[in-house]
Amino acid sequence: MDPLPGTARIPNEHDVVDLLDWCTREGIAVIAFGGGSSVVGGVEPRCDGRGVVTVDLERLDRVLEIDTTSRAARIQAGVFGPHLEAQLKPHDVTLRHFPQSFEFSTLGGWLATRAGGHYATLYTHIDDRVESIRVVTPIGISQSRRLPGSGAGPSPDRLFLGSEGTLGVITEAWMRLQERPRWHAKASAHFADYAAAVAATRAIAQSGLNPANCRLLDAAESLIHAGVTVGGGILVLAFESADHPVGGHLARAAELCRDHGGEPSAENAQDVVGDTWRASFLRMPYQRDALARHSVIAETFETACTWDQFDELHHAVTEAAKQAIYQVAGTGVVTCRFTHVYPDGPAPYFSVYAPGRWGSTIAQWDHIKAAVSEALATHGGTITHHHAVGRDHRPWYDRQRPTPFAAALAAAKHTLDPAGILNPGVLLPAQ
Amino acid sequence: MDPLPGTARIPNEHDVVDLLDWCTREGIAVIAFGGGSSVVGGVEPRCDGRGVVTVDLERLDRVLEIDTTSRAARIQAGVFGPHLEAQLKPHDVTLRHFPQSFEFSTLGGWLATRAGGHYATLYTHIDDRVESIRVVTPIGISQSRRLPGSGAGPSPDRLFLGSEGTLGVITEAWMRLQERPRWHAKASAHFADYAAAVAATRAIAQSGLNPANCRLLDAAESLIHAGVTVGGGILVLAFESADHPVGGHLARAAELCRDHGGEPSAENAQDVVGDTWRASFLRMPYQRDALARHSVIAETFETACTWDQFDELHHAVTEAAKQAIYQVAGTGVVTCRFTHVYPDGPAPYFSVYAPGRWGSTIAQWDHIKAAVSEALATHGGTITHHHAVGRDHRPWYDRQRPTPFAAALAAAKHTLDPAGILNPGVLLPAQ
Repeated sequence: MDPLPGTARIPNEHDVVDLLDWCTREGIAVIAFGGGSSVVGGVEPRCDGRGVVTVDLERLDRVLEIDTTSRAARIQAGVFGPHLEAQLKPHDVTLRHFPQSFEFSTLGGWLATRAGGHYATLYTHIDDRVESIRVVTPIGISQSRRLPGSGAGPSPDRLFLGSEGTLGVITEAWMRLQERPRWHAKASAHFADYAAAVAATRAIAQSGLNPANCRLLDAAESLIHAGVTVGGGILVLAFESADHPVGGHLARAAELCRDHGGEPSAENAQDVVGDTWRASFLRMPYQRDALARHSVIAETFETACTWDQFDELHHAVTEAAKQAIYQVAGTGVVTCRFTHVYPDGPAPYFSVYAPGRWGSTIAQWDHIKAAVSEALATHGGTITHHHAVGRDHRPWYDRQRPTPFAAALAAAKHTLDPAGILNPGVLLPAQ
Repeated sequence: MDPLPGTARIPNEHDVVDLLDWCTREGIAVIAFGGGSSVVGGVEPRCDGRGVVTVDLERLDRVLEIDTTSRAARIQAGVFGPHLEAQLKPHDVTLRHFPQSFEFSTLGGWLATRAGGHYATLYTHIDDRVESIRVVTPIGISQSRRLPGSGAGPSPDRLFLGSEGTLGVITEAWMRLQERPRWHAKASAHFADYAAAVAATRAIAQSGLNPANCRLLDAAESLIHAGVTVGGGILVLAFESADHPVGGHLARAAELCRDHGGEPSAENAQDVVGDTWRASFLRMPYQRDALARHSVIAETFETACTWDQFDELHHAVTEAAKQAIYQVAGTGVVTCRFTHVYPDGPAPYFSVYAPGRWGSTIAQWDHIKAAVSEALATHGGTITHHHAVGRDHRPWYDRQRPTPFAAALAAAKHTLDPAGILNPGVLLPAQ
């Protein structure tokens, strides 16, 4: 069994520096810990018997500066979503990054894992909301310049975004904000045919309309999460703006749905589907734990692929999941929705529900996880679109990552973290 | 004097592999060469007497595959802008990346330098148009998976974007395309006051309207490039879409101009300002050479900064340039326009014109370059927004780049290019 990790609750950045110094000297592993909402084994101290310190950053929870002219704020990494927004609200600005884990996760965690947020299009990941980032590494503090854009060499920030605690401890960042939206328009479109629903979603994703919400639920998702029986699926659409009305954009998106055989609701009609789905979405972090207590296996697989690959990937993943469920549980359900869409492809999110056998749910889970991950890897998907790699996705991540890049990343890691103390086993083999 | 470089015109990727093998064994420097349009000494063989091979990629000039479903194409890196668009046109798609050097530069060059293109907002750099990238490094070929988005570790592509030939030779990429725009709307707004013009531009940049063109010319730019006398400046605006009319967005942008005291022209009115400016913009690559022949020093400095820094930076750069011009040439002109704008800041582009003294123009140029670069570095600008670092920007790039990131980049470089043959002296010190 892994050693129980010590937990150091860090009151300020200087303590992070001191801790990394000490751990580097002593060869003790360091796991930066935000909200602990990782679903991929990102912060678990599986460190082969080595000593581990978990660095709890929750006291680094303040918005330090707000630049309302540039609409940006300097924010400490340990702040949880609700507390972050509460500090921005008096200034009439918002980060508007709402991952499903919003209540249970922190800015630093979002940055370290390239979290996916509120927007279904355009600003899908938190990456694009970063103006500059500050990271404590064992060889010094890396602080990039606040810039709205730059072409000066490979982006320093992009090396640390997605580094999952392996290259340093993110302590703060300047984040791009926006005004709170004043105009909203939403609707849902029903489709009798799933392929037609996918085609409509693709048309909207390629239209430049850039809806804030553009989530396609398949028939099973529609039933489970929105209580609606439909043959193909439901596309939940929403537009928002702080500057101008968005009804025209919604009307055009509805037209694209009709072009593909969809039946859109009227704008801002009592949107039972969207509201029900949204409530279900927000409840899910609680439900997942509740289901686990009832020994129900509830697992999600999220990916992204190009549109030309989607049919094949969708079929392969669904079949692999069904077969794995059949083998380990006899029965179960596989559903698919799009969480984000891009002009060149969707980010499908598969959910698997199966009855667990008490005492062997972890083995069952492992089997399903491996089968589906294999299907993703083989059919052009990424092993993760926004859940990160952690320890659980390593085998497939290693295959996906170009070999020379892996060597370059390992070299960067070895230089920044010579003693190999930072989150060993995540992204790269433990030294 | 530098040795005259050998030039190897490469017919296929395998020859790049062989050449890198041979040069690694022999310790001969390799400079990947696209169109040679670098204005920052990016492809000049200043290699301290070492043998140099310049790898001319112009025969890698084909569009290899087009995926019209996902709107993406696999394109060889040596293709020049016009030939690239000519190959896409029969398929009714376009990359729509039009840097000022469009005729004289290649896809590989754009990727290696994080080129800035057509769009003044949103898709400003080519970075966001990259689906996957293929790079020959001395230790092997790095090929990322085609993905519309991913959260699997730090982005492999972002390490090579902006690597300026120091980490490998880019041979091809899957690029995101779009349909040709069918709807256009444009106008220009005159401002009596420059600060008001900047405020209007900021309001539009933060509005989410995302104009394709949003270029603010100061009074001197307006006179030189558009032939218009105006107190503050002219904001040139354009919207475009392949999917929907854009007149509503232009009307809202015009309203924002009026809110700040601007006088917008009617939509799509005979747009003398925009057209004249555009013609001048396209002529500039020719004019720069013509001016040089007449011993006129014509240099540009492009940067980006946050909005809260802009006034200070604008003042400091203008004063530094004027003082330097006065010292070396007695008289001259400094102008400023925005090439791109972001919600959190503009990308100002300064032009300096001064009479050169025959025989000492390079020393004069060096003096102006150093003075302005110093002002940029001191007042929160990036040393380059889209011209790249090359050899000329190195001193200021080194100061801008976070030290731990520099160490990580050097380690990545040493791993990918153990003999240090790739474009020595660019981004990092030659080994």
